[in-house]
Formats: sequence, C-alpha cells, structure tokens
Amino acid sequence: MPVFLNATDPGFETQFQALLSAKREDSPDVDDIVAGIIKDVRARGDAAVIELTAKFDRLELTPETLRFSPQEMADLIAQVPDHERAALELAAERIRAYHARQMPEDQSWVEPNGATLGWRWTPVSAAGLYVPGGLASYPSSVLMNAIPAKVAGVERLAIVVPTPDGQANPLVLLAAQIAGVDEIYRIGGAQAIAALAYGTETIAPVDKITGPGNAFVAAAKRRVFGKVGIDMIAGPSEILVIGDAGQNPDWIALDMLSQAEHDESAQSILITDDGDLAKAVSAAIERHLETLERRAIAGASWRDFGAIILVPDLDHAAALSNRIAPEHLELCVNDPDALAEKITHAGAIFLGAWTPEAIGDYVGGPNHVLPTARSARFSSGLSVMDFVKRTTLAKMTPEALRAIGPAAETLAISESLEAHGLSVRARLDHLND
Amino acid sequence: MPVFLNATDPGFETQFQALLSAKREDSPDVDDIVAGIIKDVRARGDAAVIELTAKFDRLELTPETLRFSPQEMADLIAQVPDHERAALELAAERIRAYHARQMPEDQSWVEPNGATLGWRWTPVSAAGLYVPGGLASYPSSVLMNAIPAKVAGVERLAIVVPTPDGQANPLVLLAAQIAGVDEIYRIGGAQAIAALAYGTETIAPVDKITGPGNAFVAAAKRRVFGKVGIDMIAGPSEILVIGDAGQNPDWIALDMLSQAEHDESAQSILITDDGDLAKAVSAAIERHLETLERRAIAGASWRDFGAIILVPDLDHAAALSNRIAPEHLELCVNDPDALAEKITHAGAIFLGAWTPEAIGDYVGGPNHVLPTARSARFSSGLSVMDFVKRTTLAKMTPEALRAIGPAAETLAISESLEAHGLSVRARLDHLND
Repeated sequence: MPVFLNATDPGFETQFQALLSAKREDSPDVDDIVAGIIKDVRARGDAAVIELTAKFDRLELTPETLRFSPQEMADLIAQVPDHERAALELAAERIRAYHARQMPEDQSWVEPNGATLGWRWTPVSAAGLYVPGGLASYPSSVLMNAIPAKVAGVERLAIVVPTPDGQANPLVLLAAQIAGVDEIYRIGGAQAIAALAYGTETIAPVDKITGPGNAFVAAAKRRVFGKVGIDMIAGPSEILVIGDAGQNPDWIALDMLSQAEHDESAQSILITDDGDLAKAVSAAIERHLETLERRAIAGASWRDFGAIILVPDLDHAAALSNRIAPEHLELCVNDPDALAEKITHAGAIFLGAWTPEAIGDYVGGPNHVLPTARSARFSSGLSVMDFVKRTTLAKMTPEALRAIGPAAETLAISESLEAHGLSVRARLDHLND
Repeated sequence: MPVFLNATDPGFETQFQALLSAKREDSPDVDDIVAGIIKDVRARGDAAVIELTAKFDRLELTPETLRFSPQEMADLIAQVPDHERAALELAAERIRAYHARQMPEDQSWVEPNGATLGWRWTPVSAAGLYVPGGLASYPSSVLMNAIPAKVAGVERLAIVVPTPDGQANPLVLLAAQIAGVDEIYRIGGAQAIAALAYGTETIAPVDKITGPGNAFVAAAKRRVFGKVGIDMIAGPSEILVIGDAGQNPDWIALDMLSQAEHDESAQSILITDDGDLAKAVSAAIERHLETLERRAIAGASWRDFGAIILVPDLDHAAALSNRIAPEHLELCVNDPDALAEKITHAGAIFLGAWTPEAIGDYVGGPNHVLPTARSARFSSGLSVMDFVKRTTLAKMTPEALRAIGPAAETLAISESLEAHGLSVRARLDHLND
C-alpha cells in the first residue's frame, strides 16, 4: 500500500523522515567484478571486449564488427516509420534550441592597475555516451545526451549500446544519426565503459562519459572517474506533484503513473492541501492500474514507494518539496508561478496542469537527465555545461605586479613556500633596479 | 635526472607518451579502512569522530569542543601579524571580485506557441570544506574554497580542519573568518568527511563537500559522492611553462620550482623552441636547488618528474601542451595572447613574463583549485558554479500542448511507456472535446 500522510499528525515528522530515507534501490555489490572487467579490458583491449560481449550479450563480434557500419545503420534506420522519424526530429530540434541558449560566455576585463583577467570556455574533445540495451533502450535519452555534447562543440561523440542476441533498436540508431553522433559500438556493460575510458585497438579513448546504465555500468563509471569525466550516477526516477483544489485527478494520476511505470523502484508522490483531490487521485491511480500495460511494474512502484501527503496549505507543500529535492516537480496548481518562487531544490519544474512531465521527457526542450535521489540539493540536470570546461586567464603588467605582488610574497612566506615568494620577488627586484 | 626531450628526435613520441602516462602518485589502497571509518561515524556519530581524532590526531575532544569557540577563534586570530592580515584581506577582496562575475544568469523565454521555457539557478544550502592540517594547511586554499561558496549564496558553510596535537593555524582561522565561514570543526581524515556527509549529533550534514586532502580524505570523498556532491579528487600539482628566446631563465626556473616545492610528486615541465633558454633554465633550477628551503622536496620532484622539451616552433609547443592539458600553463613568450589562442585544454593560463604562477595561487583573483592529472581535458577549476545548481522550467499552454503533444505521445508509444502517452493524450482529448 502507498503511504498516506497528514502533515498535521503528531507522528508526521517521523513518517516523513522514513519516506525521505527509504532505500529504494538494491545496489548489488558488483564492484569486484567490475574492477576485474576494467583490468581485463585495459590489458587485452578488443579481445577482452569481444569475449565479454559473447558472454553477456550472446553476440560474436570481431574488431571489424564492433562498430555499426554505415550500411547496417542505413538498413536499420530505414525500418523506422515516418511518424516516429518526424516526432524524433521535432524533439531534436526543440532540445537543440533549448540547449543552444546554455552556451556560457567568455569574459575578459582590464583592471585599473593594467591586469587583464577573465576566462574562456572550450569543449571537451571526445565524449562517450552509454545507451542501455533491452527494455530501457530509449531513443529520447540518446537525443538528451548527444545534443548537448554536439551543441557544446564536442568533436568526436561515440555511443556504446549493447545489442543482446544481436537485437538493435532502429530508433536508437536514428536518434544517434539525427543528433550527429560519430561512432556507434554494439557493446555494453562495464566492458564498454572501460573501452571508452582507456581505449582499445579499435576504440579511441574519450575524455568524458555520460548516460544511464545498470549497476555494472554505474560501478564502472565510478571507477573510471578521474581518468575521464562522468555525469551523475543516476538512480531510479521520481516525481512529486503538488496539486490544489479543482485539478483534474485523472491527469495527475497518469503523470504519477508515468514515473511509476519506469521501474519498480521509481517513486511518485502527491502533496496536496485538498483532501478530495487526494482521494480522487488515489482512486484514479488504482483504476488505471487495472489496465495499464506496465501495471506490474507501476503497481509495485506505487505500492512500495508511492505516497500522498495532505498539508494545511501550499507553503507547507513547498517546504516539504524542498526537503525532498525531487527530480521532477509538477506544480498542478492554480497559480504555479507563485508556487515556483518558493521552490529552492528541484531538477525540473513543470508549471500548471497543461504541462505533463512526459512533455519534458520528449519534446519540451529541457533535458530529461536530471538529478535523482535528492541530489537536486547539489547538482543539476545534464546540459551543455557538462561538455565544456573553463580555462581561467590572468595577465599582469609590471604596474599590476607592483601593486599586488608584495601581498602574494607575504602569503607565500606565511605558507613556507619560498620559491613561490622568490618568483614574485625576482620580478619586483627587477622593477626596482 | 629530469627528462630532456627533443620533439624532432625519432623516439620522441614514445618518450612523450611515457611522460604523459607516468604515474606520479602512489595511491595507497585505503578504501577498506575508509569504508570502516564511514560506517563507524554513521553508526556512532560524535563518539566515533572523537575516538578517531584521539587516535589519529592525538587530541582529546568532547562534543562541546569539536567546534572552535568564538573566544578561541579570537585568541588565535589575534596572533596574526598585521601585514599577513592585510595580505589575506587583499587576496580575499580580489578573489571575491573575480568570482562575483561567475554568477550564472537565469533565463526565461516565451515561444510563439505560448510555451514558457527557461531555467533558474539556486545555491546549495549547506557546504563543507576540508582543510588539511600540518604542512599543507594553506590559508589561501580556505579563501579559494570558501569565497566561491559564499558568493554563490551558500547559507551554511562549515570547515573541518585537523589540528594534530592540538596545533591550529591562526592564519587558517583568520582566512575562514574573512571568507565568512560559519562553523569550524577541529577534525580531519575520513571521519571528518563522514561527519559532513552524514551528520552527527553535533555536526549537521551538508549537501556538498570540497577541498583537498590526503589519500584517506580522497577515498572518503569518492565514497560519499552521491549522498553529497564533491569537487574533483585533486592530484599533485603541475606546471607547464612555454618559453621562447629572450625570456628570463631565472624567473622561469623559480616558477617551475614553485610547483616542485609543493610535493615530491609535483611536476614541472618547460617547452621551448630555444635551446639556449632550455640550458639556462636547467642551470638556474640546479643553482636554486642548492639553497632553496624546500630543496629536498623540490629536488626530488624535479629529478623524478621534471622535463624540458625542445620543439621546432611555438605551434608545436601548443600542440604538446594540449595533449598534456596542464593544471597551470605559463606562456612566457613575446606574444602570449597569440599563443593562448591555440590552447584548448588547460586549467589556468598565465600570460607573459610578468605573471608568475604564484600570483594565481594567492592574489590574482582566479581560483587556484584547478584540474590536475590531465583532467583539464574534461573539467574546470573550482568556481561559483560548484555551489549552485540549475532547475529547468517548462510551462505549456493548451496551444503549445496541441502543437508538440502528439510527438511526445508517438515517442512514448515507441518506447512502450503507455502512461507517458496517456498523460498527454488525456489532455489533448480534453482540448478536442
């Protein structure tokens, strides 16, 4: 049974804490296995990747067939129906337009003492994108990861996607093509992450790896972090809906189920100041769970992790939401803009009843790769910023050095770093000669 | 002996590869010990932290004395000489001014179909800063970590700094006060990271942890990543100087030694197109190594990891520099601005002979926490961006949903996510009724 809480109950704080700290994911400890796989790929390159692919994906490859050929790509992509292609293209166009606005600007200024300061942004040269195989092989995720990289100016973008038993998803390949991906390899798991991070004879190493994956992929990303950059380690999806009187309970129920259907560990929460809405949403969820295709998954998620919380007013709702720091936050209320002002931690906000979260998954424009498991407290969704880096710039003049050099020398001496101080002093002495 | 390479030698590529992949750091495998410490602090809170501090820092604390009291702070800070205080204040002012320009802007725009899109930045609520004790307890690092956090708007900023045998560094405390740090705890090691990440009875948990530390601290940060945000895992410091004919070899030698004196694992490299400069810098380094206070450390660093590379021209120098992706890059050349245009990967660039790297360590304004170990390929130095996060915003109108909703429904169906599709369809049907 999902949890029904009332924020004015005396036991609420304890119950809410339990909800906050509920462990939704079994993280099997695969770290030792993953360490072995990475070591093997580093030592034996292609041969290890090919063996592991035969073992895990039941697929026999050679160095020549690790990568999809242009002909294979074309043949598979030709299977995509026109209306799906058109939908992907619309999504890509909107995602590109949104992310193009994220490009950060270089800055440079001259101080009165003549010093020039500033910074400059440059793209990561090569990035790798992990795309899960099987059920969770989502073409929309390809767009969401690949487009920000290409908007940032990443020159070489490689995808790894496992194709268990050789089954490839034509829509994933089309999405990769639309996004401008340069190379696609039919490998997955920790071996694919190792190949991207360290390179093999066939696969050149990349500088940054993004994209979701299972426990093996997550453990491998954690291990190669430092050698390459990684994005966040994503957990199961979550939605929090704040609703008030007069909202359509059926719409809210469907929005909550659209998270629940992702994964048995997904979490859907409704916070409302209207008891009738709480009851109506609950009933609508139960009704849809009778017929929904993925009712087994959605039902388990709702039963184990779902929650409806009744609050005295929307200010209380905002305060609880900020403690949850939800990945997706829907404000299905009469004045969503006013409520949004009170939100300090959330991955993405969907304002008003006409903005179902599913719009954000596909065609809204913002990224759907968002911080899970309360990490919106300290991190952001995927963006162009994940594929650029900043170089700071400083240029002193003799006058500037005369003005601020002595302070640097003082601090260097206080930190017992003599050469630091001497490097400033030698120049200052030259000026005084 | 440091390495002397010539880019036109037939064996150069192999030698340069060896330089690139040289392992400079012994990372002792302390992961099991650290896992135990974190578990202990999670289970027993203050009691565990106090026991571990007694064991590692030979310091007996109580829950009441974990934190520096205002009186202790005042007494210790009163020991700082005026000229050191003035230097710290100048540094803080310049670092604050530089970082204030990094605050990213919110955006919001309305599309022709009526949809409003955009994003908003908000600060992390609470951050923790690790400050090493003993030799590497640098007040400048306190400024460099704390000021960006406060500029970002972090409400609660806590410092942990071990004080082995009770020895505290007054300058560190003054730097914390100048930067506006709210709480200072005299604890260190993995136990301090665990206390910040999970909280104890006395120490409230934070959302993000930054700051350098030893192998235990680094392993602990890696382990709590996800529960909280962390900055990079910093490796030993590096400098690359590109010099051309006519530069002052003594200045370059001191700049290279100011990295070497940090750590036996630090690395200093000179790339030049002028054989005479190469010889003169090498001689100047040897001469300074006879008298430098930290000559044992600097000498070991120069002997084991130093390098001078002769190239045919500065374009070659830029190309090699981009493969190294240095933490600090000094362009001691006649036209540093032209050469800087060719640099694609570097943490920080110091332009021209009047900009010793030490200026950047203290008073230049840019941050001195920079990506090491070639990670400037994919990451940036510390900045205000490390203490803010972005919430994306989307608000559809009925018209906007009519325009883009069907594409979302198509993609949802193609991904077998029925509830996603239904959540859009229910609204579209309502519009068509």
